Amino acid sequence: MEVDESVEEEPVPSPVQPPMSRDRVPLQKSSVCSRSYFMVVMVFFHVYIINVIALLFYVHYSNGSSRKEFASSTQHQHRSFDRPVSHERFSRTMHLPRIEGIRVGHVQKVSLVPNKVHEMRTLSLKPLLFEIPGFLTDEECRVVIQLAQLKGLMESQVMVPEGQEELTEQLNLSPEEIFNLLDLNQDNQLQPQEILTHSRVRDGIWLTPENLREIYAGLHADSDGNGLLSLEEFRALSGDAFQSFLKRRGLKRSQLVRNSRHTWLYQGQGTHHVLQDLRKRVTLLTRLPSELVELSEPLQVVRYEQGGHYHGHHDSGPVYPETTCTHTRLATNSTSPFETSCRYITALFYLNSVEGGGETTFPVADNRTYEELSLIQNDVDLLDTRKNCDKGNLRVKPTKGTAVFWYNYLSDGQGWVGEQDEYSLHGGCVVTRGTKWVANNWINVDPDYQRQARYQELVSQQQQEAPGEPSKSSSSQHIDHHVEL
Amino acid sequence: MEVDESVEEEPVPSPVQPPMSRDRVPLQKSSVCSRSYFMVVMVFFHVYIINVIALLFYVHYSNGSSRKEFASSTQHQHRSFDRPVSHERFSRTMHLPRIEGIRVGHVQKVSLVPNKVHEMRTLSLKPLLFEIPGFLTDEECRVVIQLAQLKGLMESQVMVPEGQEELTEQLNLSPEEIFNLLDLNQDNQLQPQEILTHSRVRDGIWLTPENLREIYAGLHADSDGNGLLSLEEFRALSGDAFQSFLKRRGLKRSQLVRNSRHTWLYQGQGTHHVLQDLRKRVTLLTRLPSELVELSEPLQVVRYEQGGHYHGHHDSGPVYPETTCTHTRLATNSTSPFETSCRYITALFYLNSVEGGGETTFPVADNRTYEELSLIQNDVDLLDTRKNCDKGNLRVKPTKGTAVFWYNYLSDGQGWVGEQDEYSLHGGCVVTRGTKWVANNWINVDPDYQRQARYQELVSQQQQEAPGEPSKSSSSQHIDHHVEL
Repeated sequence: MEVDESVEEEPVPSPVQPPMSRDRVPLQKSSVCSRSYFMVVMVFFHVYIINVIALLFYVHYSNGSSRKEFASSTQHQHRSFDRPVSHERFSRTMHLPRIEGIRVGHVQKVSLVPNKVHEMRTLSLKPLLFEIPGFLTDEECRVVIQLAQLKGLMESQVMVPEGQEELTEQLNLSPEEIFNLLDLNQDNQLQPQEILTHSRVRDGIWLTPENLREIYAGLHADSDGNGLLSLEEFRALSGDAFQSFLKRRGLKRSQLVRNSRHTWLYQGQGTHHVLQDLRKRVTLLTRLPSELVELSEPLQVVRYEQGGHYHGHHDSGPVYPETTCTHTRLATNSTSPFETSCRYITALFYLNSVEGGGETTFPVADNRTYEELSLIQNDVDLLDTRKNCDKGNLRVKPTKGTAVFWYNYLSDGQGWVGEQDEYSLHGGCVVTRGTKWVANNWINVDPDYQRQARYQELVSQQQQEAPGEPSKSSSSQHIDHHVEL
Repeated sequence: MEVDESVEEEPVPSPVQPPMSRDRVPLQKSSVCSRSYFMVVMVFFHVYIINVIALLFYVHYSNGSSRKEFASSTQHQHRSFDRPVSHERFSRTMHLPRIEGIRVGHVQKVSLVPNKVHEMRTLSLKPLLFEIPGFLTDEECRVVIQLAQLKGLMESQVMVPEGQEELTEQLNLSPEEIFNLLDLNQDNQLQPQEILTHSRVRDGIWLTPENLREIYAGLHADSDGNGLLSLEEFRALSGDAFQSFLKRRGLKRSQLVRNSRHTWLYQGQGTHHVLQDLRKRVTLLTRLPSELVELSEPLQVVRYEQGGHYHGHHDSGPVYPETTCTHTRLATNSTSPFETSCRYITALFYLNSVEGGGETTFPVADNRTYEELSLIQNDVDLLDTRKNCDKGNLRVKPTKGTAVFWYNYLSDGQGWVGEQDEYSLHGGCVVTRGTKWVANNWINVDPDYQRQARYQELVSQQQQEAPGEPSKSSSSQHIDHHVEL
């Protein structure tokens, strides 16, 4: 709209003028041969030529912009990212289309590769989750697995997490304050659920209700034996008492939040064409601007051996006013103890069909309500993918070549990323037989539009300075942050 | 896009020509005074003037259309309804925006009247349901009630429904076929739920599990006394046996599906300004094309006395390929035994605050699944708004001036009306104290785009023939169909 208005203010030749000059012609018939009259005619002539050319440019210009508008808003194609003159505030020119889920079981046809139509089925609305069989060919699955093996995989989680006390120390909280934060229902006692719910957030050891009873007994923590911790009982424990106890007793990999190996594969220019194709296909699938997809994390390839699992988790955390995003942090120069990966979308590809187990579970998909505490009830922990996968609301069977993708954040109602979608909670069920290979593409978007815009501007400036290595410069940043995931 | 392309094919003056004619000027300097040369110059001159005018028109035209496109797609304003030359197939030029619910509890600001901002809260996503406090002023509520009283209200449902056997007769079904249709779980026996579920659809008497036991006993229908009807037992009953039994025993108004009185108020030109304002406000609220809102049913005003209720129901039925819509039926000349009102949106206004009861209940709102049979379990019938309003998922308290609105149909994924949203099931809880006044605005849209387009074309042709009475001609059609609702 702004473009149209500003152009209208330019001097546009009035269509009233020409008839006036035509009227004068017969009146001055006698002096038609004079040089001055010829000059006047030629001046008019040139003015009109210039006007015609100016109008042609204007038509071309306004035409182009309206076409762009139309394409991006009605056909959900990519809108180019306009950079305004001011470097302080970016106007909201980028919109993120969300695919309509309609209802669970709805199937829509999508065109992702030439000469083939894929079917995309809605699996749930909370989170907005889709399944696309045959997204990758068998050959492509094979290539991705081999590229990952060539690069080498590392443990997804180290056995003994380090630095787990950092945040608490940084925040400088007293035991009373921690007790209060843990005491979600504010009854001045810590129920086992309250301990377990907290424990998953903070460190990499997975506590079960049985573990907790064991720990209470071993540490004599629950002196009155009622299964609850009072403030006095809690104060008697050191900050890492539970973890230390378990570590002393010896930890198995199956007791971690995550038991798998993974690696990262770049997808930019110069990489294997299957990886580049995959990224293009994800862009078509999600209908997001290609810049966003290209500036996102590399492809993560994960291998779960028999017995491997990944307990229930969110791929990206909630966003509070002070939360920063990993991918835009460098561009915004902000320091905050709260940082999350801001993965707007997760696209998960099954690279093989698993012989037994290994489903992706969405324990609270399409639940009417979401309450963190009610995830653990009567010793049944819905987040435990080694025990309770069968009790969740939705499970996706790993089938070679199938892709699923979902939104980890809601819309903000204005075409941008909003709050975290808590229902996007998911996990990898234990592999009971065989090996499970999957790959993840995350699309990172900062819920703060200004930060995302500033980040993209910075990257594009860097790319202009060093045009030879556009893909490396954008994704090398990611590997530092995500190598430990 | 079509417009742009066709215009580009028109002859556009080439900017190369003028320099050529300029080059010739110095070469023919001597003959500059000749009349023929003057004629040539003037012809060029006029051709350019015509071109400039043509270009100005084109700029104006393409400008206008791009602005329209932009407004309707990004700001959700109304798109004009283009009528193509062909009267057979209408191209999809009309799109119906759906308001984003984001999540339950999300609040968005909406501008509906000058100098006031309303807050619209998402109450549920299934159905997509919003609440807007203060949508009507106290004065407006008073006017609507008085206009309804002036016009006079009639019983919403007659005591003894007539013509209830029509459909069955028309379809010419044998008792075996009916038995099979009723036997939803195909166990060759009719459970009480199966009888009750069917009964609500077919006629106006509300059967409760207790009624059914009474009827079985009175008619000796369940000869083996197991609470189930076998095919033999079912065959022994006549088609209207249950209803006849209840009628013989005497019916109270509280035993009907609906116990209220109502009337219809036109909202077109010449009617009270409050009614016209209300319609405009509904257009702004729903962001639908104003033509659609104007061609919809008149305002229905309903009064529930103490003890009044409306059991759980859908405002509009499912749409199968052979289903016709009441409002487009005349335009499409189709005859089908399956007809529904095709109410895309229900906007419900509370005209007073009820002293006790009278909530609007959405028993399955945001449920994970919808199963008709599981609505009746262990003698608890979630559709019964006299008994079980407290057991439903969501209740809206009637507060004077508050509006709620919801979508009775899903999107089809292409900007038009899709399948029925079964979760839009709702009812009016029994009024325990005082009187309840509400008004309903339904927005009728045919899920068949072609039929809706043909209907709108027909109405606009009629309006052109008789421009004096545009509002009457469109809504007089409705009163015939909906007087009995």
